[in-house]
Amino acid sequence: MKIIALLAISLLVIVQPCLSQDLASWKETPAKERILKFVEEVTDSSSSKFVPEPDRLAVFDNDGTLMLERPQYAHLAFLESLAATRPDVRRDSLLSRIQRYVYGDFYWLLQFERGMKGEEYQAAVANWIGDAVDPRFHMPVTKWAYEPMLELLRLLAARGFAVYICSGSDTDFLRGFSGSVYGIPAERVIGSTPVWDLRYSDSGLDLLRDGRKVNIDLNEYKAINIFNRTGKRPLIAGGNANGDLQMLLLSQGSPSATLQLLIAHDDADREYAYQDDTDQVRQNAASFGWQLVSMKDDWGKVFQ
Amino acid sequence: MKIIALLAISLLVIVQPCLSQDLASWKETPAKERILKFVEEVTDSSSSKFVPEPDRLAVFDNDGTLMLERPQYAHLAFLESLAATRPDVRRDSLLSRIQRYVYGDFYWLLQFERGMKGEEYQAAVANWIGDAVDPRFHMPVTKWAYEPMLELLRLLAARGFAVYICSGSDTDFLRGFSGSVYGIPAERVIGSTPVWDLRYSDSGLDLLRDGRKVNIDLNEYKAINIFNRTGKRPLIAGGNANGDLQMLLLSQGSPSATLQLLIAHDDADREYAYQDDTDQVRQNAASFGWQLVSMKDDWGKVFQ
Repeated sequence: MKIIALLAISLLVIVQPCLSQDLASWKETPAKERILKFVEEVTDSSSSKFVPEPDRLAVFDNDGTLMLERPQYAHLAFLESLAATRPDVRRDSLLSRIQRYVYGDFYWLLQFERGMKGEEYQAAVANWIGDAVDPRFHMPVTKWAYEPMLELLRLLAARGFAVYICSGSDTDFLRGFSGSVYGIPAERVIGSTPVWDLRYSDSGLDLLRDGRKVNIDLNEYKAINIFNRTGKRPLIAGGNANGDLQMLLLSQGSPSATLQLLIAHDDADREYAYQDDTDQVRQNAASFGWQLVSMKDDWGKVFQ
Repeated sequence: MKIIALLAISLLVIVQPCLSQDLASWKETPAKERILKFVEEVTDSSSSKFVPEPDRLAVFDNDGTLMLERPQYAHLAFLESLAATRPDVRRDSLLSRIQRYVYGDFYWLLQFERGMKGEEYQAAVANWIGDAVDPRFHMPVTKWAYEPMLELLRLLAARGFAVYICSGSDTDFLRGFSGSVYGIPAERVIGSTPVWDLRYSDSGLDLLRDGRKVNIDLNEYKAINIFNRTGKRPLIAGGNANGDLQMLLLSQGSPSATLQLLIAHDDADREYAYQDDTDQVRQNAASFGWQLVSMKDDWGKVFQ
């Protein structure tokens, strides 16, 4: 009896992965079909489109592609929380309001990072992430990720892809949750980077955030940073706005088969409906035949 | 009989790795002892110095630390070979000689990269590397690596370290051989990066080397680039000159146990003896107690 039970359990362990359906939250539409077919072809050694494992690079934008970006980017929400820990700065004073108007939200908030070490910043993000909630769905940031995209990341990892984030948000901000939410380790996060102040002391060297300037990872810098980082073109690239155009075009220009995904925010009921800042990327999607992914039509559910 | 033979083979397969000695080309000196002890402690989960695998980052300079840098950096030798493929440039003309004198070897040679795509450059390096030989030992570049350092890289990889190169040489140049010579994949190479020209076409986007400007990965940029790339401080850092100082200090400043290695070129017979551009790094090595590695006294052999 024991042996039969063991055999049954073993069989279950072996068969179970085959039973679990890839991209289960995706509807049965051409988008899902095309993604699954592409992944199948580039990972099948007998296919003419086969790509060896070390060259299987997949790169995704973060905000609006992997997770909710409305009404506020997660990174900005975090900076607001940093500002709130500084009672010495009267944020509602006339001076603060004028400065904020002049510099814009982002550069005004950046000052609150000033003097933080890289590690301190990562720890502050990891600490904040559990508490922060969005105002509409009341979900903590850890739940902002789109379930269909999490399934795609898992599928790609299982098929030998190295999956990277390439985002305009801060690199160490993203590192605060990329591992726990996406399963993406710190070294596979490409984002904006602070200008660093170097502080030498008896204990060695610390890197401190300057709090004023930043190297923004958007547009052409996404393409440049991906290539500098990996020495490769993405086999799969996914984005949702004009800032992702060059990253998608870098992938498009590869001599091998590639797949580009453009996430469309067209679901006002379950997420949001907006097309801001997407004209160029939509035009290129049409001419190159990139895969549009409609939240409304292609996703069975949006969040977990 | 067959079963006994099988058992004997199995036993050999199991026991063999234990018989092979770590750092076999190192002499039995305090340097070897300290390195082995450190690696043992940070990878032993019962040790107070234990560091979990995802945080085991090791970073090494390339030229003069992992491989021969005299009489000419490998990267410069490669650029010379690129120049030689351009018969339209009369390198011995008076104009060329004046320009070379004014700009210096490196910036003069850089012009020959101009317009090359990242992939083309990597392929050119991989193609060149087999032919190029150094003038003294007549070894191809693939043999320039120091055998004791190759053994150290293998030991660290076997103990769960992510091993990176961080070098002033060009990133895509290093990628041309980092995999085959060091077992270090393209995404773990941190080096100088070109300024890229973007070329949009009907087939997508290409990145072309500008051939004039370059972001040099030396001094403070080594520390900054390591942290931007990995979000971590190195557990082990190795270098040989002042350009490696900040990288070593970044490692030094970690709250965990760390190890810094400084390779000393003091073996005129088997390699070279020189101390150029090492004053700051030697001074810091003395005050922080970094491990000096003498080629002459600590290495049983230098090359394979």
